[in-house]
This record gives sequence, C-alpha cells and structure tokens, in this order.
Amino acid sequence: MPLLINNEEVEQLLTMPDTLAVLEELYRDIAKGSAVYRARTDLHTPTTRTMGPDIPGAHYLKSMDGAVPRLQAASIRLTSDVLAYPLQDGLRRRVKIPAAPGNRWLGLVLLFSTANGELLSIMNDGVVQRFRVGATNGLGAKYLARKDARTAGLLGSGWQAGTQLMALCAVRQIEDIKVYSPTPGHAQAFAEEMTETLDRPVRAVSGAEEAVRGVDVAVTATNSRVPFFPAAWFEPGMHLSSMQRDEATDECFKLADVVVFHTRAKEQNYTSSDLAEVEQRYGFEIRDHSLARDLDWNSFPDLSELIGGKISGRTSDSQRTLFLNSIGVGAQFTAVCHHVYTLARERGLGRELPIDWFVESVHP
Amino acid sequence: MPLLINNEEVEQLLTMPDTLAVLEELYRDIAKGSAVYRARTDLHTPTTRTMGPDIPGAHYLKSMDGAVPRLQAASIRLTSDVLAYPLQDGLRRRVKIPAAPGNRWLGLVLLFSTANGELLSIMNDGVVQRFRVGATNGLGAKYLARKDARTAGLLGSGWQAGTQLMALCAVRQIEDIKVYSPTPGHAQAFAEEMTETLDRPVRAVSGAEEAVRGVDVAVTATNSRVPFFPAAWFEPGMHLSSMQRDEATDECFKLADVVVFHTRAKEQNYTSSDLAEVEQRYGFEIRDHSLARDLDWNSFPDLSELIGGKISGRTSDSQRTLFLNSIGVGAQFTAVCHHVYTLARERGLGRELPIDWFVESVHP
Repeated sequence: MPLLINNEEVEQLLTMPDTLAVLEELYRDIAKGSAVYRARTDLHTPTTRTMGPDIPGAHYLKSMDGAVPRLQAASIRLTSDVLAYPLQDGLRRRVKIPAAPGNRWLGLVLLFSTANGELLSIMNDGVVQRFRVGATNGLGAKYLARKDARTAGLLGSGWQAGTQLMALCAVRQIEDIKVYSPTPGHAQAFAEEMTETLDRPVRAVSGAEEAVRGVDVAVTATNSRVPFFPAAWFEPGMHLSSMQRDEATDECFKLADVVVFHTRAKEQNYTSSDLAEVEQRYGFEIRDHSLARDLDWNSFPDLSELIGGKISGRTSDSQRTLFLNSIGVGAQFTAVCHHVYTLARERGLGRELPIDWFVESVHP
Repeated sequence: MPLLINNEEVEQLLTMPDTLAVLEELYRDIAKGSAVYRARTDLHTPTTRTMGPDIPGAHYLKSMDGAVPRLQAASIRLTSDVLAYPLQDGLRRRVKIPAAPGNRWLGLVLLFSTANGELLSIMNDGVVQRFRVGATNGLGAKYLARKDARTAGLLGSGWQAGTQLMALCAVRQIEDIKVYSPTPGHAQAFAEEMTETLDRPVRAVSGAEEAVRGVDVAVTATNSRVPFFPAAWFEPGMHLSSMQRDEATDECFKLADVVVFHTRAKEQNYTSSDLAEVEQRYGFEIRDHSLARDLDWNSFPDLSELIGGKISGRTSDSQRTLFLNSIGVGAQFTAVCHHVYTLARERGLGRELPIDWFVESVHP
C-alpha cells in the first residue's frame, strides 16, 4: 500500500546527519554510473492568477527523475507552481504564490520500487527539499573546506539558510557564525533561532562584506538572480559554498583553485510563446538563463567525481575552494525519500492508500 | 478536490472522434508555440524480478510533461514498469511484467491546473494511451491519405491495433480492411471483434504482404524492434501509417513523396552501469536505439507543422505518403486527460480525494 507522507511527518523522521550520510552514499553510486538521473525540466505557460496590477505571472511545471539500484528505488519529483514577478528595487523578483486551495503550494515526490514497479509513497517535497539542498552544500564543504575551519559567514536568512548551517556544522567544528540579510530584522530573528538550534553563537551583522570577511567558510543562500559575490571577498584559504548559480561572480570561479559543481547537468526550458510578449513587455526572461554566463560550465568536475575519488579536492590550506549547487537532480529525492519512507514504515507514520487506486489491468 | 479516474471510467467517457478533435486542436496550439512539451525520458536500472532462468530484466521509469494554455492545464505522465527480455524466434522481445500487487501495471497521468497550480486528477494511463496513439496516426491519415481512400491493410492485432482502425475509419470512408498477425488465431479473433465494433468488414489474411497489397492505407501496429516493411510493398498512392519507428524500412522513408513525423523530439535514455554487463552478456541493448538508423530524422516535418499549415501534405493521388508516430509527447496526455476530466466532472464519475493530501504549507 502506498504511504502518503506529509511534511510534518518528514520533519519527525529526517535529520541532517542522516541526509548527509544518505546523499554521500548516493554520490558514490552516481560516480560508478549505478544511480542515474535526468536533468530537471521546466515548462512555463501563462496563468490567470496574478498578484496585482502590472505584475506578470506564469505557471511553472517542474520535474526530475532518478533511480538508485542499491535502494531498489526510483522517484519522480514535481512541482506545480504559480509564479509572479513583482518589481523590487528595480529588479523583477520571482515569487511562488500559494495559489492552490487553502493558500498552499504543490510539490510532490512519487517513490517507486524497482523490484516490482509499485508506488511506495507520495510525499510532500518541501522539507526534503530543504534538507537535500543543505546536505548537498554540506558535502561540498566536507570535501573542500579546510579541516580546521572554525568560522562561517552566511548571506541570506530565508527558508533554505537554516539547513545550510545545520549541514555545515555537521561536517566541520564551526564555532562562530555571522549572518547578513538585506531584509531588515530577518537576520536578527534568524540568528536567535539558529543559536538555539545549533547550540553555538550565530550573530547578525549589518553588511554582506562584514559577514564573510575573515571567515573560513562563506555560505550564500539567496534568491538573487544576479551574481553579487565579488572576487575581493574570496580570501585565500576560504571555502565558498554557493547555493545557486546567481551568487558567486565569474571572477570567483576564475580565482578559485578548486571548483566543484553539484552536477554538470542543465535544466531544459520549454516556454510557451504566449509568454514571449510578457517577457518583452516587462523586459525580463521567465526561464532560468544564467547558464549563458562567461564560463565554460561543462569544464568543472561534479560532486560525485569528488566524493567518488575521481578528482582531488583541496591540497593546501591556502587554496580557495568553491562549491556550486548548480542544480538539483532527481536521484537526490530518490535516496532521501526512500530513507524517509523506510523510517515511516518502521515507526508506523503516514497514511496508507489503496494500491488499487494507482495500478491498472492493462498496459500500453 | 483531485479526482481519481480509473481506466473503466475513462472507457465510459472517451470516444475516438473526441480524441481526434481534442488532439487536432492541440497540434494547432503546438504549431503556434503556445502548447509546450518535453521529450520523454527513460531511466533503466536493474530489477530483482525475473520471468525465468536466463531471462534478463530491468526496471523502467518513463515520464513526459506537457502544458496547454488554452485548457489552463498541464500534466505529467509516468510509467513504472518491470521489463523482461525473453528470447523468441532468436530475437529478444521486450515484455512488461505485471509485477505490481495484484498482477498489475503502473501508469498514471497527473493533471494540474495552470490557473492555480492544483492537482485536478490522477488517472490511469492505459486507455488514454490507446486512444491517443490511435488518434495520432488517425490525424496523420486525415491530412495525408487520399481523400477517396476506401481500403486498408493492418499488420498487427494487439492492444493498440483496434484504436488504429477506429481512428482511420473516423477520418476516411474505409469499406474493406485486411489484417495480418504472425500469432496464429490472433488476426481471426481480432477481425471478428473489429467487424462488429466498426460495423464494416474486417478480414484476416494469411500473410503480411497480402494484407497490404493494393490497399489505399497500410497501417503497421506491431512491437517489432527491427524494420520490416519493404519499399516493394509501398505502392504509388498509398498512405503508410506507422505506429512506431521499427516498422517501415529506411527505403520507405526515401521512397515516400511526403514524410511526416509525429514529432522530431527524441527520448532521452539514462541506463544504469549495472545493466551494461547484462546487455553485453545477452547481446542486446535495453534502451531504445533505433534513432541510429541511416536517416536524418531531424530533416522531417512534424504533425503540428502539417496541421498548422506550415507544410503541405499530399498534392496528388499518385504520391506515396508516410506518417511515423515517432514518439509520444506529454502535451497529448494533457489535452486528452483534461477532456476526460471535464467529462468526469460533468457526469459525476471518479473518486474525490482530499486536496490536503497533495498540497503543502511550505515551498522550496
């Protein structure tokens, strides 16, 4: 019987150390070619929902698949989002509107058995998403940051920032953390909460440069659409952990002694012609397009090659290292959700659904 | 509330004329660039299930997405199949094993609203699949076969063959149909059943060449992995309607005056390294690989260009025309399943599921 598992249940079951361990094993599988995944695909079409006058919107269907033979599991992760692009400080910001009934979002993982093909679980993707993004950057730091790293600086204090710190503190003995957010008050509230969660000092500072100056590990966890982290902030010995592509400037990639991407895979975009007029009128592109930057993105090694030992990481304490969580892949959800599913079965959590609902007596 | 719709309910709701009409509109949307889709992706990994000694197997996760602005709908179609490759007449045949609980298969379509992102329906894919494949070839015949086509020859009498004839008879005044199957008795039983369904003579014949000799429309609906239809059978004036890539030989494509593909999109394959040994040992490839044939597949126009008027079809009665249903695309499921969903709502069919199960209060 497929198990319906919601975010509240995932939160009871999933820990950061477990997520790190599960993903580290996964990258060994990927390095061997055993685990497989496809790059994310994005479909953008018009939507009728809007945030207000003159605020363009779009529907966004995103999906990714992955399979892990060692776990006898495969999965599809999908999100069905209503996007709006309000103007903020002269730039179009992307907002996901909770447009589904009850002011909710929709993101699911469907987990399958590769032994008999059956649907094992339908799971909310939100909590898993936070943990897997945090753990991915955490693994980058584990293999690239100086072994004696003690200080960290964080830019951003949103939904993803907390798991970034949890993962970093699980792989290094971090003793002091500075955090900066451009949103007034956010960093302070975040710092107080994380000081408690992590049981070590997290303090808000008043500028981005101040947050990362002199730290052993700089972490960017923003929703910026424009690279902003200058090479001048990237000091010798520093590990720069970037959560997405539009944070570190091209100069950082050129300056780094070691650069590792999460994956070289790229998302594939399919945008309805109905949105071309919107893009033109408002002067922005709905699709992700940062891959057009002045770098050969295919030239960088990926995390599976680092963890699998195909490339070496840092070789001296004075080197600059950079990990970019370039894009997520489906196999991450397969591994983490299989772990959550296994625990849910053990502990009797989740709601059993009739398997009859999801199978059929004919095949195409 | 999302509506769970099973195959029995789809069968009550979906007709071939409706499927043809729904898809014809879809191709106009695709021609304009309004409707979008991504190419199918295939993930092959090992499975523990087997059909018997020395019969290799694999798990196969397949998915495709599509969105249709006019319908304010998007969808993901997925199948989770356990495959086996028994040897038959010296060739490896691909069999989908009903390995899921209750000896079932698993194929689903998840339909979403692009207006608010919500999940509208979870639907079995089996019946929709039959109808959309039949209707796709039917539209090829509508736009390419001679207007006065009266006779048809069908090779194959399996699950997909019936809808091929239903679609053809909906677009042309077909008066006489011959059918051949290499499986003894199959063609005869099929002919009797289809004579009743179509209310016109369908007769079994004892050879493939006999089935297609002298007919106005030849239809291939087989699971062959090797092209078998020779140019010698492809007579002047004939329309050759091919359900998949490994039926018409390269010479047919070269001989045809007009060739139209369903789409130029190609599936993307991801095969676990664990299966490489299996492929080598048994001497066959698990992934689809027929795109390696001696033709420039990108040079052919597609069905949306034909229906949208970007290319012309047949211009004389003596021309040979060839339609190849090269691969399915997600937008077909979006359009057809949205139609089924709308009818199910109108007629009170299907089972309502709580929307709370499929939404979340956090977003990544």
